[in-house]
Amino acid sequence: MATPTSAWHRGSGTLNDETITRIDGWWRAANYLSVGQIYLLANPLLREPLTRDHVKPRLLGHWGTTPGLNFIYAHLTRAIRERSQSTLYVTGPGHGGPGLVANAYLEGTYTETYPDITQDDEGLRRLVRQFSFPGGIPSHVAPETPGSIHEGGELGYALSHAYGAAFDNPDLLVVAVVGDGEAETGPLATSWHSNKFLNPATDGVVLPILHLNGYKIANPTVLARIDDDELEALMRGYGHTPHVFVAGFDDETPASFHRRFAELLDTVLDDIAAIKESAAAGDESRPRWPMIVLRTPKGWTCPPVIDGKRTEDSWRAHQVPLASARDTPEHLEVLEEWLRSYRPEELFDATGRLDADIAALAPEGTLRMSANPHANGGLLTQDLRLPDFRDHAVDVPAPGATSHEATRVLGEFLTDVVRLNPSTFRIFGPDETASNRLQAVYKATDKVWNAAYLPTDDDDHLARRGRVVEMLSEHQCQGWLEGYLLTGRHGLFSCYEAFIHIVDSMVNQHAKWLKVTREIPWRRPVPSLNYLLSSHVWRQDHNGFSHQDPGFVDHVVNKKAEVVRVYLPFDTNTLLSTYDHCLRSRDYINVVVAGKQPTADLLTMDEAVAHCKRGLGIWEWAGTEVAGEDPDVVLACAGDVPTLEVLAAADLLRQHVPELRVRVVNVVDLMRLQDEREHPHGLSDRDFDTIFTTDAPVIFAYHGYPWLIHRLTYRRKGHSNIHVRGYKEEGTTTTPFDMVMLNDLDRFHLVIDVIDRVEGLGSRYGALRQHMQDERLRARQYTRSHGEDLREIRDWVWPAAAALAEASGTPLGTGAAVETGGDNE
Amino acid sequence: MATPTSAWHRGSGTLNDETITRIDGWWRAANYLSVGQIYLLANPLLREPLTRDHVKPRLLGHWGTTPGLNFIYAHLTRAIRERSQSTLYVTGPGHGGPGLVANAYLEGTYTETYPDITQDDEGLRRLVRQFSFPGGIPSHVAPETPGSIHEGGELGYALSHAYGAAFDNPDLLVVAVVGDGEAETGPLATSWHSNKFLNPATDGVVLPILHLNGYKIANPTVLARIDDDELEALMRGYGHTPHVFVAGFDDETPASFHRRFAELLDTVLDDIAAIKESAAAGDESRPRWPMIVLRTPKGWTCPPVIDGKRTEDSWRAHQVPLASARDTPEHLEVLEEWLRSYRPEELFDATGRLDADIAALAPEGTLRMSANPHANGGLLTQDLRLPDFRDHAVDVPAPGATSHEATRVLGEFLTDVVRLNPSTFRIFGPDETASNRLQAVYKATDKVWNAAYLPTDDDDHLARRGRVVEMLSEHQCQGWLEGYLLTGRHGLFSCYEAFIHIVDSMVNQHAKWLKVTREIPWRRPVPSLNYLLSSHVWRQDHNGFSHQDPGFVDHVVNKKAEVVRVYLPFDTNTLLSTYDHCLRSRDYINVVVAGKQPTADLLTMDEAVAHCKRGLGIWEWAGTEVAGEDPDVVLACAGDVPTLEVLAAADLLRQHVPELRVRVVNVVDLMRLQDEREHPHGLSDRDFDTIFTTDAPVIFAYHGYPWLIHRLTYRRKGHSNIHVRGYKEEGTTTTPFDMVMLNDLDRFHLVIDVIDRVEGLGSRYGALRQHMQDERLRARQYTRSHGEDLREIRDWVWPAAAALAEASGTPLGTGAAVETGGDNE
Repeated sequence: MATPTSAWHRGSGTLNDETITRIDGWWRAANYLSVGQIYLLANPLLREPLTRDHVKPRLLGHWGTTPGLNFIYAHLTRAIRERSQSTLYVTGPGHGGPGLVANAYLEGTYTETYPDITQDDEGLRRLVRQFSFPGGIPSHVAPETPGSIHEGGELGYALSHAYGAAFDNPDLLVVAVVGDGEAETGPLATSWHSNKFLNPATDGVVLPILHLNGYKIANPTVLARIDDDELEALMRGYGHTPHVFVAGFDDETPASFHRRFAELLDTVLDDIAAIKESAAAGDESRPRWPMIVLRTPKGWTCPPVIDGKRTEDSWRAHQVPLASARDTPEHLEVLEEWLRSYRPEELFDATGRLDADIAALAPEGTLRMSANPHANGGLLTQDLRLPDFRDHAVDVPAPGATSHEATRVLGEFLTDVVRLNPSTFRIFGPDETASNRLQAVYKATDKVWNAAYLPTDDDDHLARRGRVVEMLSEHQCQGWLEGYLLTGRHGLFSCYEAFIHIVDSMVNQHAKWLKVTREIPWRRPVPSLNYLLSSHVWRQDHNGFSHQDPGFVDHVVNKKAEVVRVYLPFDTNTLLSTYDHCLRSRDYINVVVAGKQPTADLLTMDEAVAHCKRGLGIWEWAGTEVAGEDPDVVLACAGDVPTLEVLAAADLLRQHVPELRVRVVNVVDLMRLQDEREHPHGLSDRDFDTIFTTDAPVIFAYHGYPWLIHRLTYRRKGHSNIHVRGYKEEGTTTTPFDMVMLNDLDRFHLVIDVIDRVEGLGSRYGALRQHMQDERLRARQYTRSHGEDLREIRDWVWPAAAALAEASGTPLGTGAAVETGGDNE
Repeated sequence: MATPTSAWHRGSGTLNDETITRIDGWWRAANYLSVGQIYLLANPLLREPLTRDHVKPRLLGHWGTTPGLNFIYAHLTRAIRERSQSTLYVTGPGHGGPGLVANAYLEGTYTETYPDITQDDEGLRRLVRQFSFPGGIPSHVAPETPGSIHEGGELGYALSHAYGAAFDNPDLLVVAVVGDGEAETGPLATSWHSNKFLNPATDGVVLPILHLNGYKIANPTVLARIDDDELEALMRGYGHTPHVFVAGFDDETPASFHRRFAELLDTVLDDIAAIKESAAAGDESRPRWPMIVLRTPKGWTCPPVIDGKRTEDSWRAHQVPLASARDTPEHLEVLEEWLRSYRPEELFDATGRLDADIAALAPEGTLRMSANPHANGGLLTQDLRLPDFRDHAVDVPAPGATSHEATRVLGEFLTDVVRLNPSTFRIFGPDETASNRLQAVYKATDKVWNAAYLPTDDDDHLARRGRVVEMLSEHQCQGWLEGYLLTGRHGLFSCYEAFIHIVDSMVNQHAKWLKVTREIPWRRPVPSLNYLLSSHVWRQDHNGFSHQDPGFVDHVVNKKAEVVRVYLPFDTNTLLSTYDHCLRSRDYINVVVAGKQPTADLLTMDEAVAHCKRGLGIWEWAGTEVAGEDPDVVLACAGDVPTLEVLAAADLLRQHVPELRVRVVNVVDLMRLQDEREHPHGLSDRDFDTIFTTDAPVIFAYHGYPWLIHRLTYRRKGHSNIHVRGYKEEGTTTTPFDMVMLNDLDRFHLVIDVIDRVEGLGSRYGALRQHMQDERLRARQYTRSHGEDLREIRDWVWPAAAALAEASGTPLGTGAAVETGGDNE
């Protein structure tokens, strides 16, 4: 299937009465089928008088927004056909599901997608019955709905999704309907500013339609209750040219308001075409893109009054206006009148097929919005051209001999990714791309910026075109990236670890979308949503407690295991290997947490690749095991800072408790810890037991909240031996080592943990235990008097690693060696 | 300490040159001390030439926003003194910590609060040294900072906090500085609309100052780079009257720009006074409140160019402009020049005390913004007058004999709370108060609404004054409530369970704030943040999968145990008892998840109170235990839907496996499951083992993600016997029973779990197991053909509960009986 061609034509001026009649017919048909879906089990065309048995026992769904969505859809259909304009329809009020299903059915796409929903009486019966019905389809514009990239379950993201879809699709028009309820949300309120990040020459166009139907669930809406001059000022302030359109509040004939709206749509689309022409001719000024304010009654065309209460043009029309349609004859009668008001006999022929004249309104093939391939982005996805990440490997003569800022080197790799994929890969970030040290990418690209420039901007890497998209809104970054991915492109979101929680609920929605699309055969896999979380909990040096929260991982692992991957690369080469893997994947949410501060390089690239492929491994070079014998204790680690503390603890133990057999295990793919029955990456019990033993104490130094390790390993045989250290919500603006001490994750405390947990050590090593306490005190006192960590602590890595390796008899540079089974793609 | 009195005076016109000089002195002093805090260890007044030893080894903090914050503070100080206007300063760019600390020090509050930070050379040395220093204070406007209710760690909530503080404080002016970085966030973008929810007669005033310094961390800001006409349109669109003020970009003298800003401030404050007067006189129109756009250079007054790169008026001034001040003589020299540019010798006397003339700028006592008692809300908190929740008890002749919508009855209780506390209690919700069935409160109050009214609004419970605050923005609800609580008032946030994740990151920030304030003696406890999460995962009937997420509990339990409480009341009386408890508490985050659909009443009020006091308990009436003998299996439950399924399963087991000794345990206070060493509510091991046994299989039906139960109980002896059923991310728009079946939480599956886990049952009860599978199939088939659940499933509760109780020989209506120790306040 190819992308539809497009031309940004001006209107052709064919707005005759016949066309207007067709638009009205389409609208009535869509409204009729929407009401039908909400209420009817059978008798979809009212071939017989309506009885209670035709009505669903549970009436679930939302009528209020639907007629407005259908109105817009009908009009766009006309315009698209005339202009051959590839158009994607983003339904902000996604609970208007019946409307979008109805339109897809009218366009024929629904039947092509679901052949049992035929274009006849029986197909109509199935269509109406399945909606919000057990075993049927959900009530929203869900993945099941052809033409949708936006379910609209949680409100707020219609515009950011729309802009994400428009980026790098210069021929695509994205019409985004924003409900006036949604417009009150924070994410939506800032997403209007997306127009400062859109390049009119190389991106597509977003046409926002703010649908003011005046009410949300139980209240009027803010934007419907401010003066027109305020509303227009707001839209101008957002950088748009607003066009206010009002219909449905008086006796104006449908022919009249349809004509007015069709004319407005032609004006707006002509204006858009003019802007595109101008941009193509080199005009670099920021366009004041048109947008439409559409004021209609909520529940437009439903019974004005039900049970003596105003329903049309009221919040009462939000969900199901006739709640007792099955149980009271009065409601049943009103329902039948309501359905018949659309004159179904004019809309469908004797076999139940849409009237041919009305059907002629629709464009053909992929120009139908419900069949636009951008809404099934996997169809259009091309693999990224990836450079060989090994080319960016850092040289590791031995563990800890050198150090790098891992994300800075990743930036070099990403520079190549940008160069090789000049129009299908973007990096999103809330003003943190450089802070997270990816600034090498500016060698290859700029930050897209379509607001004003100053002469002093010369060296700031701002440009009308750019692969980096930065706005101080995590919501925008997430929403744009989602829209970009769902339309088949690639990208990553680089963010401070703590503040990625801002998009927790968006991740939920995206994970749910992916979970469902994986179960729908016609939905093709899309590129994964890749996070790079840096400036993490242990190194938020400038900020402190408010910026410390490693809990995003906890949040994400509640989602379906098939969809979620979590990686904690601890050095530069493992980060490179991990990210290469993520960028190749599909349909996942990949969470990568990585440090930006200089940290010890531990594995050569070959070792890193092997380690990442296994996801975890025993580091013989760092331990003091004797081949063939079980270790006395396992020191496990996940994350860059915990890994260094574990290595330091192993070094201390080697020096002070030479007879102790210590095994060091590093976990880079966190999901390996889970049971293979719980997660596709999960280790078998046999492998887990081999690595962690079933009886030795395991001291696990973990990057985040310690309980997560228990949650992941509770089924394991040796679980009760696992003792986890991690972030326990203690922090402030202080030194890196003080941070780990505040949370008992430091090397000295890990040694104490070993003494306390390995049988027999406590009695023999009381002095060492005290010494470790003293070392903690000394470290803290030094820090508090000097304002920095002891140099010996900062500079620990190389000599200790070397000593470890020498003592173990394992050549420096030898990585993990235990092979493990299972799929960790 | 009493609230300062206020009068909304017009200006007194005393803007003479002397005052202007004082303002400039204050500003220089605040700037000087801010730079000092970022850089200096010692030599705070440059009594000797600056050397590297005077400079901190780690330079942490943010200069960029600070001089602007100081500028505003200095000017407000002048105006407050003249007008005796109680004023709270909300610092959106909270990383401007050094500025707020400096001002609190200049006002004397800092020394009053921390007596070792004296008003002399030594005090100054301590002041500058402690900032961002181990063992010192954090870099932000943290709880440690007098006068702060807003740390500004995560950006976006300055205005919603400010409005929350202003609600019901009619004499309070809240000046909220919004950074232009913050202004890009979603929550901030919608929070401008808060003015539609503020009553000018009975609430205080928020004066937003949008501080455009042009840059964020590494980029220009959107609002600084749109045309003035767009920016002003935006502010007018938000309902404000904007005043644009520009300074610092040219050679204008400080005397000149100070005079201009002082005059502007007088104009604005006079306009506010006029609006207040007008409102007091009965004018009900919505005021177009003034707001100020303050354009200054970022890092204003720092070295214009450092290392050949523009620094002042650039993003490079964001954090620490002279990163190598300690390590390069050039930077050290520039730093000394920079410090001396403020002419410290004019600002402080020979002993290090602030020049008396400058000091005279400040108002006295609680009129000092750093001493405003609203910023330490616990000082002003009055206990809620609570009605007796028992008056709203529902009659429970026997478990399951009746049913109620729990939240609807809670609404009746809240109605009384509203009546008894007409100005200190509010209910916040994102348009879901009625959907969550609390609408009884409209008998006592209305929804506050200060946007336009229509004649048709008569029965919609909208009013200029109202205790219910609804906007479709969870961010706004959370932010307003936080502001309201932190200034010492009470409230709750009613929200759909799934969408409370929208505020995950805000909860993090609030939990961190509470955690730290609990460690600060002068911070007094504030009322708890109470959630009522309804329309929960099992009963999002109209919406389905996108609206199903019970993971907020998982998120919250990562925060400090002292701060977090989680309750899962399963019926009306337990909900009433729980909520009464929450409304009395302080300094907690209380998460209450409760159903809104009709559900079986199980406990009488006396039983409910006893059960809630224990937090969990054995229900003898529902089990088939024999006194004195251990049970064969424990059926545990938490949450309304799981509780009913467990009771049904117990009933099935009683019928089909009569010899099985089943214990039924219900958990209402989830934190009881945790170890007493982990959580203040945690059960002792002894109590836990008594209730759950150490060897019997425990089938635990839990409301949310099943892993949470493992995370809470992993230390328990019998943990490996616990088998949890819960929501595993399977759902759609379907029937309630289909939902529990999709997640294997249904009664039939629980019976299968018992057969599979109790030794010996599997071999003997293969036929029952198959029968349960058949029942699942029958239930599903019925649902898919009829669109509703089998009536016998819906109507199960009463006969089954009666049968259970009769069989157990325990009188109906007898609740939990095992006493447990521990504090679960």
